[in-house]
Amino acid sequence: MIAAVADAVRRLRREVGPSWVIEDRFGPYQQDATFVTAAPLAVVRPGTTEEVAAVVRVCAEAGLPVVARGAGTGLSGGPVALGGGVVVDLCRLDRLEIDPADGCAVAGAGVITATLQAAAAEHGLMYPPDPASVAMSTIGGNAACNAGGMSSLKYGVTADYVTGLTVVLADGQILTLGGRTRKRASGYRLHQLFVGAEGTLGLITELVLRLVPRPQHRACAMVAYESVQACAAAVGRLLESGYLPVALELLDRSALQLIADHLPPGLGARPDAVVPDAVVPDAVLLVEQDGNDAAQVAREVADMVERLGGSHAVVARSEAERAAFWRGRRAIGEYLMTRPHNYLPEDVAVPLAAVPEMVAAIRAVGELYRLRIVLFGHAGDGNLHPVIVFDDDERARVSPACAQIFRHAVRLGGTVSAEHGLGALKRDFAELEHGSAALALMREVKQLLDPQGILNPHKIFPEHPATDDFLLEQPGWRT
Amino acid sequence: MIAAVADAVRRLRREVGPSWVIEDRFGPYQQDATFVTAAPLAVVRPGTTEEVAAVVRVCAEAGLPVVARGAGTGLSGGPVALGGGVVVDLCRLDRLEIDPADGCAVAGAGVITATLQAAAAEHGLMYPPDPASVAMSTIGGNAACNAGGMSSLKYGVTADYVTGLTVVLADGQILTLGGRTRKRASGYRLHQLFVGAEGTLGLITELVLRLVPRPQHRACAMVAYESVQACAAAVGRLLESGYLPVALELLDRSALQLIADHLPPGLGARPDAVVPDAVVPDAVLLVEQDGNDAAQVAREVADMVERLGGSHAVVARSEAERAAFWRGRRAIGEYLMTRPHNYLPEDVAVPLAAVPEMVAAIRAVGELYRLRIVLFGHAGDGNLHPVIVFDDDERARVSPACAQIFRHAVRLGGTVSAEHGLGALKRDFAELEHGSAALALMREVKQLLDPQGILNPHKIFPEHPATDDFLLEQPGWRT
Repeated sequence: MIAAVADAVRRLRREVGPSWVIEDRFGPYQQDATFVTAAPLAVVRPGTTEEVAAVVRVCAEAGLPVVARGAGTGLSGGPVALGGGVVVDLCRLDRLEIDPADGCAVAGAGVITATLQAAAAEHGLMYPPDPASVAMSTIGGNAACNAGGMSSLKYGVTADYVTGLTVVLADGQILTLGGRTRKRASGYRLHQLFVGAEGTLGLITELVLRLVPRPQHRACAMVAYESVQACAAAVGRLLESGYLPVALELLDRSALQLIADHLPPGLGARPDAVVPDAVVPDAVLLVEQDGNDAAQVAREVADMVERLGGSHAVVARSEAERAAFWRGRRAIGEYLMTRPHNYLPEDVAVPLAAVPEMVAAIRAVGELYRLRIVLFGHAGDGNLHPVIVFDDDERARVSPACAQIFRHAVRLGGTVSAEHGLGALKRDFAELEHGSAALALMREVKQLLDPQGILNPHKIFPEHPATDDFLLEQPGWRT
Repeated sequence: MIAAVADAVRRLRREVGPSWVIEDRFGPYQQDATFVTAAPLAVVRPGTTEEVAAVVRVCAEAGLPVVARGAGTGLSGGPVALGGGVVVDLCRLDRLEIDPADGCAVAGAGVITATLQAAAAEHGLMYPPDPASVAMSTIGGNAACNAGGMSSLKYGVTADYVTGLTVVLADGQILTLGGRTRKRASGYRLHQLFVGAEGTLGLITELVLRLVPRPQHRACAMVAYESVQACAAAVGRLLESGYLPVALELLDRSALQLIADHLPPGLGARPDAVVPDAVVPDAVLLVEQDGNDAAQVAREVADMVERLGGSHAVVARSEAERAAFWRGRRAIGEYLMTRPHNYLPEDVAVPLAAVPEMVAAIRAVGELYRLRIVLFGHAGDGNLHPVIVFDDDERARVSPACAQIFRHAVRLGGTVSAEHGLGALKRDFAELEHGSAALALMREVKQLLDPQGILNPHKIFPEHPATDDFLLEQPGWRT
C-alpha cells in the first residue's frame, strides 16, 4: 500500500473507529452478485451521515475513489471498486421511521427493503417497489439503481416513491433535498437526479419515501401458452383492454424448466404444473391483482385469466397457494445467484408493443450462439430478463450473444437496463442507447458534481467501444 | 427597438415566417393568469421543434432572453418576459399521437391537456394529471411546472407520466431523452430534470407520456363539517385507514360562499347545498373514487363517507350529479381568473399530518391582516390553495399576509409551491425553502445548461431577500 493511501486509511480509522475499517480479507466486498471482481483499497463502514461525509472528505483530499455499497446484490458490477478505491458500506445506516400520519417512511440507506415493507405493513401501509432481491437488498441500493421489481406495472419504481433524500456530495458536503410533502413544484427536482445515478454523483445516506395504503386482498393466477409468442401477444392485449394488474410476469420454457429442476420439494409451486401430465408449456404468465374487496379482486383475476387466453390456467385458491406461486417465481433468481461465474443476468426493456419481437429476438440469439437463455421478466413493463446460463467451454459465445440482445433492445426503442443500472457491465452501451448528445450532457452533469471523478469511477460511462467483446475487459471474466 | 434586437427579429421572421412573429400589440402575451405584466421584445410562434431550435439559436447569438410559453394559464408569472425577451409561444406544436399498443402518447408541447385526455379516453386509456386549467393549459406548460391537479392523490403529478421528451437547449441544440419504455435504469434521468424547471434549463417541445387504463366507473360524494379543523383532521384519518381515493378536495366556508355567489344557476352543484336550510358549512370535502366495478366503487365511496364523519353528506346519484359537483368545484378557479389584479392564488403544501395546523395558520393570517382568504385545495396531497381576494384599498396588506403563509408552510416542512412553480412571484422564497446549499447546486445546474442565462431569466432564483414586501417588486402590482 503506498504511503498516501496508508495515511488516508489511518485518517478513515480515526473518523469511524478502527473496528469499522477493513484493510484486508475483503471477501464479499470484492464483488456484487455478478462475476465482476476487484479488490478495494479499504472498506469503511460508517454509522451516520456525518461519518459518511467525513469519509468522503478524507478520500477527496487524498484523491481516492469512493464506491458506495449496500448489500451487494447488484447485477451490473456497480459497487465493485474497479481500479481500486475505498468501498463505503452503508449498511449500518439502518435507522427506520414509519410515519403513518404523514404517510411516509424515513429510512437510512442501509435499511433492508423487506424490513421497510414489513414495517410499513404493520401500519396498514405499503412500500410497493418489490425487486427480486427485496429480502437482502437495501433501500439505498434500490435508489442508486432505481430498482423496480414485481409490482412496477401498477405501482412504479423506486424513483416514484422518493420525495426527499440526504446525499453526501463529492467534497463531503451534506445536502438535504425535497422532504415529506408529496408534491413540490419548487426549484429543480435535484433529488430525482441522484436516484438511478449509481453513486456516481453523490452517496445517498437517507431517504424520505412515500407510502400508500396497503390493499387488503390479493389474488393470483398462472396462465400457460403453447408458444411464447402467443404469451407475449397476450400481455399487450390484456393491457389494451383496460386492466392494470399489479404484476404480469412472463416465464418461458427455460425458466420453467429451471424451476422444475431446482425448486426444493414443498417449497413452492412449479409454474409448469399449470399444464397437466408433466408437459412443460412454452411460456406461462403469472398475473396478480390487489384491492380492498376480496370478491372484486378474485373477479378481476378471473376476468383477466379469461382475456389472457392460453391453453391452461390455474388460480391460486388460498393465500398459501398464492405465496407458493411467487416462491416458484423467486426461485429463479435464488438459483442463479449461487453461480455468479456462469450466468449473465440481463435486464432489457422495450416499448410494450415490441415485447413479442424482443422475445423472438432473444430466442433467435440463443439459437444462433447455441446458448441456454433463461427468459423471464416483468412483461407488463416491457422488461425482460434474458439470463445466459453457460458452462466454461461456452464462455466465448456469451459476450457476442449478450451484445446482440442489447442491440435488439435499442433498435426496438428500448433500454439495455430497465432496473439494474448500467454499472460496469453495460456502460459501453450507454452511447448506443442514449446517443452522443445526451451522453455528453450526462458527462457534464458528472463533471459538475464530481470534478475530481472520485465517485464510483468506471461506471455508467463507456470506456470502450460497444463491441461483441465487451465482457472481456471486465475483471473477473474468465477467458 | 435597438438595432441588435431589430436585426434578431428580422432573422426570426426568416426562420419561422413573418406571419408567426408578433412585434407589437402583444395583448395576452404580456401576462399569464396573474397580475405580473411585462412587454416582450417580440413573440415568435414556431411550428416545429426545428423552428424552436432555430429561434433559440438566433436569440443565443443575439444574447436575447427566451421565454417559453404555452397557453399562459400559469399562476406564478412564469411565462412573462420580465426585463424584456423573446416569448416563444409553443402552441402550434400540437401534434398528438395516442399509441394504445405501447400504452403511451407522444404529444407536442402545445397540445391542450384536455385534448390529450379525450384522445386517450377514445382508446380506453387515461392521462391522469388533471390541473384546474386542463381545458386551456398545454401539456408542455404542465410539464414545465410539474402540474398536479384533482387526481394527484391516487395518480401522481405530471412528472410521474413523462418517460421521454425532446428539449431544445440554450444553444439551440435538440436533445431527445428517454423514450417509450416504462422503466429505464440507464444513465442519469435527465428528462426528469427538465420537468418542473419552468423553461429555465431548456424548452420542452415534445413529450412521451405513459397512459394507464381508464377506469370504467367513478363515484363522488360531498361531506360537510361544522369546523374546518374537523374537516382537515378527517383527511388524515381517512388516508391512515387504508383508503386511497382519486380526489380528496377541501373547500372551506369562503370557497363555498364564493361558489354560492357566483355559480351560474343550473351550471353545477353548490357544495354548500350538502347542508339543508341554506346554512353554509365551515368546510366540505369532495371525495371521489374510480374503478372497474360500479358496485364496488359505490361501496367504497359509501365507506369513505362513513369514515370521514362530518355533519352531513351527499353522494352523487348519477354521472350528471357527479359532474355537477365538480363543476361547482371548478367554478372557483374560473371566477378568480376573471380578476387577475385582485386575487393572489397560492399553492402551498405541507406533510399530511400538518394540514390541520396549516389550515389554522391560513385562517389566522386572514384574521390578522383582515383579508378574505378563499381556502380550498387538494387536501389529500397536503396541498392547499389559499387565495387572497382583495380590493385595491386592501392591497398593502396582501404581500405581508402571503409572506406569512409561505413562512408557515416552510416551518411545517412544506413547500411554497406544490404544483404551480416558483416563477417570478415566489422566487424570493426559494432559499428559505431549499436552504442555501441546495439552491447553490440549482444555480450550478442552471449555469451548466444555460451559461448565458438567456432561458426565462428572473424566475425560480431569488433576486431579493424574502421579505414581507416581496410582491412590490413585481411589475404589474399596483401600489
